[in-house]
Amino acid sequence: MSESGTQGRKMNLAQIRAFLEDHFPQIGPGNDLIVEAVGSMTARLRLAQQEKHLRPGGTISGPSMFALADVAIYIAILGEIGVGDDPAKVPMSPGARTVTTNININFLRRPIARDLIADAKLMRVGRRLAVGEAWLHSEGSDEPVAHAVGTYAIPAEISADVPFMIALH
Amino acid sequence: MSESGTQGRKMNLAQIRAFLEDHFPQIGPGNDLIVEAVGSMTARLRLAQQEKHLRPGGTISGPSMFALADVAIYIAILGEIGVGDDPAKVPMSPGARTVTTNININFLRRPIARDLIADAKLMRVGRRLAVGEAWLHSEGSDEPVAHAVGTYAIPAEISADVPFMIALH
Amino acid sequence: MSESGTQGRKMNLAQIRAFLEDHFPQIGPGNDLIVEAVGSMTARLRLAQQEKHLRPGGTISGPSMFALADVAIYIAILGEIGVGDDPAKVPMSPGARTVTTNININFLRRPIARDLIADAKLMRVGRRLAVGEAWLHSEGSDEPVAHAVGTYAIPAEISADVPFMIALH
Amino acid sequence: MSESGTQGRKMNLAQIRAFLEDHFPQIGPGNDLIVEAVGSMTARLRLAQQEKHLRPGGTISGPSMFALADVAIYIAILGEIGVGDDPAKVPMSPGARTVTTNININFLRRPIARDLIADAKLMRVGRRLAVGEAWLHSEGSDEPVAHAVGTYAIPAEISADVPFMIALH
Repeated sequence: MSESGTQGRKMNLAQIRAFLEDHFPQIGPGNDLIVEAVGSMTARLRLAQQEKHLRPGGTISGPSMFALADVAIYIAILGEIGVGDDPAKVPMSPGARTVTTNININFLRRPIARDLIADAKLMRVGRRLAVGEAWLHSEGSDEPVAHAVGTYAIPAEISADVPFMIALH
Repeated sequence: MSESGTQGRKMNLAQIRAFLEDHFPQIGPGNDLIVEAVGSMTARLRLAQQEKHLRPGGTISGPSMFALADVAIYIAILGEIGVGDDPAKVPMSPGARTVTTNININFLRRPIARDLIADAKLMRVGRRLAVGEAWLHSEGSDEPVAHAVGTYAIPAEISADVPFMIALH
Repeated sequence: MSESGTQGRKMNLAQIRAFLEDHFPQIGPGNDLIVEAVGSMTARLRLAQQEKHLRPGGTISGPSMFALADVAIYIAILGEIGVGDDPAKVPMSPGARTVTTNININFLRRPIARDLIADAKLMRVGRRLAVGEAWLHSEGSDEPVAHAVGTYAIPAEISADVPFMIALH
Repeated sequence: MSESGTQGRKMNLAQIRAFLEDHFPQIGPGNDLIVEAVGSMTARLRLAQQEKHLRPGGTISGPSMFALADVAIYIAILGEIGVGDDPAKVPMSPGARTVTTNININFLRRPIARDLIADAKLMRVGRRLAVGEAWLHSEGSDEPVAHAVGTYAIPAEISADVPFMIALH
C-alpha cells in the first residue's frame, strides 16, 4: 500500500488528488472522502465521519459505506490506468470515464460512529473491465464492518471530441 | 401495488409513513425519499431529485440509487411483517430492527436529472430472512437505470428491555 | 416468450438449437439442459431432472441451479446478438465467445425433485456488456426457488484468424 | 490454514472428512472435491480435474467452479460450528443443516485444465448467518481465476425429532 512499486501504475497519490480536485469536487479536498494511499492494484480511503453519515443509534449509514467502497475501488483502478498526459483530454480519458457496473456489498457488523477506512484491492484489470474488492473497518479496529466487490467498465479511447461525461457514480 | 389485497400484510401506507416519521426522520416527510405505495409484497418509493444527489454531468449518484433501492425493499418487508401493536415496543420490534445484510446492484443506464422511482418486490419473506428486488427508473421512462437484489435479516422477538438499536442502514 | 416479435433479434429457436448442437454438446440434444423458447430479450430453459442433479433428501443441487440460470441468460443474449451468417466464422463470433463475468444467485426455496424451469430476461444488451436475470421454478409451481442476475462480456469482432476459444462457462 | 489454533473451532480435518463420508458422499472420498485443510475460519479444498468438468477448449466449467467455492465456504463454517457430539443427532445439527442463501461469483480468468484450489475465509460467523469468501486458483499458479462471496443460513437447534433434511446445496 506504499507509494513504492509503481511499476506499471499510471498515477501516484499526488496526481490522483489533483485529478479529483479538478474533476470530482465531491471527493476532493474539504470533502468527507479522503484518498490516503495508493499502491500497486490498491488504494486506501477514509470516510471522515460527519453528522450526515449517521443514523439514529450512532451507526454509519449503508449508502455512506457503499460510497466509500465504490470510490475506493475506482481510485485503485485510476492508479493503474491513469488519465493520460494531455490535460485537455483528461475528461475524455478512459480513466475519467470508467463507470461502476455492479457492486455486491455485505454488511458484516454495525460500524461505530468513527472514521471508516476502506482498503481496496483489484482482482483483475483488463482492457475493458476491472474487478476489485474493498474491506471496510472502523479506525482503530481490525474487524471488517463491510465487504464489497465491484465491476467497472473501462471505455475505449475516444479520438474525436465528444460531450464531456463524468465517470463516477 | 394498490392498498387493496392487504391480507397478511401488517402495515398500510399511512401506518408506514407514521412509523418512518417517528423513527426514521431521514426517510420521513420533508425528506428526499418518499413512500408512494405499498402492496402485497411490494412498495414504490420516489427519490425527489435534489442538487445533492447529482454528479457533474447531471446524473444521479450511485449512493443515492443504492439508498433508494435499499429503503424500497425494506419498506416492502415492513409492510409484510409490521412493527407490532404496542407503541412502546415498536423500536424493539423485529420490523424496526430488520437490517440489510447484502445488496447486489447493477447500474444499467445513466439516469437523467429527474426523480427516480423504485419498484420493490419481495421474493421471499421467511421467519428470519427476507429477499427482495428493486427496479429503478427515471420518472416518465420505462427503461430501468438500475436493479438491486437485497437480503435482510429479521431479528427474533425480544422479551426483555434491551437498549434501543435502530434498524435501517 | 413467443417466437413472434423477432425484430432486432438475430437467432430463433431452431438456429439456437443447431448452434448448441454443433458447438456446445453439453447443452445440446440428449443433454439435460433444453432450450424451450426464445423471445425478445428472453429465453426459457428446462433442466430435465436426472439422478446426478440430486442431493440426499431429493433436492436439486446448487451447481445444477447455477448452471441452468447461467445458460438461460446466455441463450437470451445469443438470441439478441447472434453468431453471424458465415458458418466458418461462427466459433469466433462475439456471440459464441461471450463469457460470464459475474453471477449473483439467491436460493429462495428448496426445489423438489422435478424438472426446473428458468425464465431469463435481459435487462440491458450493450455493445460490450449484457446484463440479465433468471427466475427458476419447479415445473407445475409458480413459486421461485432461485433468482440469479448475471453480467456477460461480449468480445469485439475478430478479423484475423485466432485460436478457437469456446465461450460458455 | 494449519490445524493449530483450533480454539473455538468445533471440527478438525479428520472429523470433517468423516462427516462428509457419512453424510455427503458427493463430497467425500473418491469424489472430485477434496478437503485439504481447515483452520481458524478457513478451509482449503481441491477440485481434482476430471473430464466431466471440462468445456470444449479445455477450460473448467463455471458450475464446477461455483460448486468448489460454495462447498469450500461451507466447510469453513462447518469447522467453526460443528455438528455436535451425539452421532444420532448429527443430521439434525445446525452445522449439517446449514444452507447457502446467496453466492456472488466473479469469473476473473479462464482456468486451465488443471486441479483448482479454493481458499475459503469466513468474514463473520453469527448465530444465524455466516458470510465468507473463496478465492480460486489453478494449481501451481497464484493468479485467481474466480472469487466468490457467500451467505449461509444456520438453522436453530432442533429439540424434537424432525424429518431428515440435508443441508448442502
